[in-house]
Amino acid sequence: MRSMKCKICKDKGLNHSADIRLPSHRLNLCKGHFISWVEKRVGETIKKYKMIRDTDKVLVAVSGGKDSLNLWNILHKLGYSADGFYVDLGIGDYSEKSKIYAKEFANAINRKLIVLNLKDELGTVEEVSKKLKRPPCSLCGMVKRYFFNKTARENGYNILATGHNLDDEVAVLFTNTIQWDIEYLKRQYPVLERRGKFIKKVKPMCRVSEFESAIYSFLNGIRYIKAECPLSHNASSLKTKMIISQIEEKIPSFKTSFYMNFLRKMYPLLQSQSSVKISDCKICGEPSVNEVCTFCKTANFFSQ
Amino acid sequence: MRSMKCKICKDKGLNHSADIRLPSHRLNLCKGHFISWVEKRVGETIKKYKMIRDTDKVLVAVSGGKDSLNLWNILHKLGYSADGFYVDLGIGDYSEKSKIYAKEFANAINRKLIVLNLKDELGTVEEVSKKLKRPPCSLCGMVKRYFFNKTARENGYNILATGHNLDDEVAVLFTNTIQWDIEYLKRQYPVLERRGKFIKKVKPMCRVSEFESAIYSFLNGIRYIKAECPLSHNASSLKTKMIISQIEEKIPSFKTSFYMNFLRKMYPLLQSQSSVKISDCKICGEPSVNEVCTFCKTANFFSQ
Repeated sequence: MRSMKCKICKDKGLNHSADIRLPSHRLNLCKGHFISWVEKRVGETIKKYKMIRDTDKVLVAVSGGKDSLNLWNILHKLGYSADGFYVDLGIGDYSEKSKIYAKEFANAINRKLIVLNLKDELGTVEEVSKKLKRPPCSLCGMVKRYFFNKTARENGYNILATGHNLDDEVAVLFTNTIQWDIEYLKRQYPVLERRGKFIKKVKPMCRVSEFESAIYSFLNGIRYIKAECPLSHNASSLKTKMIISQIEEKIPSFKTSFYMNFLRKMYPLLQSQSSVKISDCKICGEPSVNEVCTFCKTANFFSQ
Repeated sequence: MRSMKCKICKDKGLNHSADIRLPSHRLNLCKGHFISWVEKRVGETIKKYKMIRDTDKVLVAVSGGKDSLNLWNILHKLGYSADGFYVDLGIGDYSEKSKIYAKEFANAINRKLIVLNLKDELGTVEEVSKKLKRPPCSLCGMVKRYFFNKTARENGYNILATGHNLDDEVAVLFTNTIQWDIEYLKRQYPVLERRGKFIKKVKPMCRVSEFESAIYSFLNGIRYIKAECPLSHNASSLKTKMIISQIEEKIPSFKTSFYMNFLRKMYPLLQSQSSVKISDCKICGEPSVNEVCTFCKTANFFSQ
């Protein structure tokens, strides 16, 4: 087989072989240019969707997985002021290890990592899940959303950044689309502007695929938790990702075109529809669409 | 294996075995009750979407395939006034055989069949396709839409009915959705109301699957053309149907729920958007979104 040359090296008259093939971008790159390509892509996404200004203070929601650590690394390299926030969910070994990776990375780039222990606030995810007889994944999602917003705002950050990659976004978009869930579709965008006490939320990795993210962390020697969460027997999201890769096999670039065309053509149409009102939760004062927010309802029920 | 009983027979205290299993409806039926179930479903679809009133004169676009002949049979049995219209596309043996099936069925139910010979109007699909270097399928679609509307209107029919089944509708919806093609999505509905000289168009089979339609024609002894059109190497629509059946395997009832939720939740939202204007083609007087309709543009080019 003929060895491929890196597209960017070739343009510069250099001669490095292309170790990384990106068929959905019709692009072959050497290791160094792959890294700069990912970083440029994230930088362009930030500009395109007006995610972060130079004066903004960003808090990155860090799970200890590859996507959020990559994101933190890239924001840092691009010169943004970005600290990290880790929620210790108390899921045994899994949480212990992810916390170590998050702390290790914070030290490496010499940035602050805020750590919140869910056990001190409510109990571990498992405890709450068992007591409430509610699936751990939806509970975990709710709790994280609550503390991401509250912690960022209370600590003077005006933007929360999460590591959702293209595959994550496509899976959620696909699920909401085949169910035509209009309320969710209306909110699926790489940027959610500030609404009252809900601070601005951004997803700068939304145009980087799972595969590209995995290679980026490998090439940068970023250590991260590779295990799946032991509580997530999340068959439905796995099933969705399988369906999507079967479609991508038959329709190359499906993921990017499905997602980007949604953002460009459908999302603006949905914005003409009226939105739900937000007020302060009458127990904790955090923003909510109901009188009492979901977190307080849960905490209340749990303490009974 | 335990033999299943027909759901309706069982409710009536009868004891027929269920020869037909419809897992997506969680229903098992005997032959007789399957036939009445399909006919009832089509009748309900007609009422639900206000497709046909008792006083309407319907022209059924008959291809000689199972869906359009089933539709004609059901409309006739339900007591609607429905004649047939067959366009002879001049595709050799394929057209000859389909015409025979269409005529045979018209005789069997003793209704009128209008036959139009495309050769007399423009040339065969193959001839036009070769000369214009345009794929036969898109050309054939355009030509049929043109003559369906013109012939129905000129012969005093106020409704055109086509045999599109659930699988056809889901395939088109899926394609338009993954490309977020808003203009097409806006028009994907079982009923298109009359707009100027465009007469009302209805798809009463839109909730009957391909599989159900095939069994219905078999049980009724309706003879139809089973071969695919020899000009349609329509890989893209085949690929789409394969993707859809892979999804249906993983998500039971996907087809029905994807389509019905679209109609219920997304279609109304899209109607708030402005629509294109229709005027009369300045050559033939048929309705068109352009000054000269696509048929006349094609005919004009062809005659040069």
